[in-house]
Amino acid sequence: MGSRGRILIIGATGYIGRHVAKASVALGHPTYLLVRDSPASAKPERAQLLDSFKASGANILNGSLEDHASLVEAVKKVDVVISTVGGEQTANQINIIQAIKEVGTIKRFLPSEFGNDVDNVHAVEPAKSAFEQKVKIRRAIEAAGIPYTYVASNFFAGYFLPTLSQAGLTAPPRDKVVIFGDGNAKAVFVKEEDIGIYAIRAVDDPRTLNKTLYLRPAANTLSFNELVALWEKKIGKTLEKVYVPEEQVLKIIEETPFPGNIIIAISHSTFVKGDHTNFEIGANGVEGSQLYPDVKYTTVDEFLNAFV
Amino acid sequence: MGSRGRILIIGATGYIGRHVAKASVALGHPTYLLVRDSPASAKPERAQLLDSFKASGANILNGSLEDHASLVEAVKKVDVVISTVGGEQTANQINIIQAIKEVGTIKRFLPSEFGNDVDNVHAVEPAKSAFEQKVKIRRAIEAAGIPYTYVASNFFAGYFLPTLSQAGLTAPPRDKVVIFGDGNAKAVFVKEEDIGIYAIRAVDDPRTLNKTLYLRPAANTLSFNELVALWEKKIGKTLEKVYVPEEQVLKIIEETPFPGNIIIAISHSTFVKGDHTNFEIGANGVEGSQLYPDVKYTTVDEFLNAFV
Repeated sequence: MGSRGRILIIGATGYIGRHVAKASVALGHPTYLLVRDSPASAKPERAQLLDSFKASGANILNGSLEDHASLVEAVKKVDVVISTVGGEQTANQINIIQAIKEVGTIKRFLPSEFGNDVDNVHAVEPAKSAFEQKVKIRRAIEAAGIPYTYVASNFFAGYFLPTLSQAGLTAPPRDKVVIFGDGNAKAVFVKEEDIGIYAIRAVDDPRTLNKTLYLRPAANTLSFNELVALWEKKIGKTLEKVYVPEEQVLKIIEETPFPGNIIIAISHSTFVKGDHTNFEIGANGVEGSQLYPDVKYTTVDEFLNAFV
Repeated sequence: MGSRGRILIIGATGYIGRHVAKASVALGHPTYLLVRDSPASAKPERAQLLDSFKASGANILNGSLEDHASLVEAVKKVDVVISTVGGEQTANQINIIQAIKEVGTIKRFLPSEFGNDVDNVHAVEPAKSAFEQKVKIRRAIEAAGIPYTYVASNFFAGYFLPTLSQAGLTAPPRDKVVIFGDGNAKAVFVKEEDIGIYAIRAVDDPRTLNKTLYLRPAANTLSFNELVALWEKKIGKTLEKVYVPEEQVLKIIEETPFPGNIIIAISHSTFVKGDHTNFEIGANGVEGSQLYPDVKYTTVDEFLNAFV
């Protein structure tokens, strides 16, 4: 392609959206960000982020999922739409689908996924319902005939690794580690910056058209036991391991109020059921690190070095 | 009243639902529980809970929000419907409203609330959207002319007090405590068992008809600073206090992925904005401990004794 597709990002100030937006600008795409408030009216931290996007060349558009006209205007300006809205807004993405249908010129839509592949999960409530909402959006996109890519990026390295998924810690544990299940299911941890880059690489790529883009970099696909062993080797110490059998994990989920129970139920799906890796990537999927071998992703090994 | 109203509870195996169900049986109401799976087919922990409900005299009905016929059949058997479904199912309660309209004989409906009074909050996303979903259900109930009580029970004592709201701890802190805002906004902590009792007391009470039932027991309405001072007195030690200004709290919310960000945003609404107590209870509200002074609720002071 002679020029890079113009990209609209909805949810660019959010947790993963900011990394997608940075990658879009960095990789040379004309980048538009649909945001609720202008830098002038935003809260300080948010204003700073919007200012930095603006300074790097992104175009800030005002609007929201609830303002149909703003959405249509924004979609008209671009070739590609990426949604990175938070989980509380999953269902509202139907408004984006409507706007894309109405405009009719969008070449690729990436709905807000960036987690487990929701068509291949064995989750209990309330993660089950949360995943099903994403499934509904997938089916609506397909029914509307909108060209898509679903980014199943699995776990955020920056969220899970600094504590080895131990609630409330600010650094990986040095004495004791709690492991859901037997610790043998393989999970995938990808740094947020790398997720942004893989997502942007995919938007103009015919190989990802109407496919799920799985991120399963080999060095970052580890069982919990392997993850702990890697950490133990780094700190030269053996941790006490507390294994929590599935029945007990399910009990903890039922005895935790919303929304804390979703976090535990997603961990159950991933660490007990193995939903990141317990299936082969089929004809409707492609793997990111194989598609883009030139992307030098941060490995789990490298990531953990910061905490030794 | 000669006899106690028959109660249907939807969500009885959940975090707060189990306490509402126990109170319903204990206070002598013929009690029906709509559950997805039978004791025989349920996972062990869940089966045990259902068995104990059954043994105490509750009637187990099979069905769900998605099975309209099961919902209508269940609603036909009772006078009062209480929903205690989790936050991921808030919007689906529209199905309960439909069933209640269709049956036409329900004398009181308590939708799943059991938290902040969603008509009086100053929350940021993603708590804002979560609260708005509950508001939509309130407005739908009123539009349908269904007799209601909204239970604004504020915070679950059993969830927040054992750690003084410090993420990841399993006992209250003995060295350092992190406090959102200046620690002066008053919050309310009510033990889950007591919430169940207040809710059940309200269902047959004409004074709570079409009102919000606020739980603000005097002894349990405390600022974070007062809560910490109470704990310090108990353990005879002064804690290091780390105050997090609002701007920093908002930054943490934006930098935490869903759904962890909802938990922090609810804390922001409560501890920074003071949304449990920053308004007077108006003509459409009543206060539980004043309405039922005979209920000997567990005080925060008593609750904390277990952890000294």
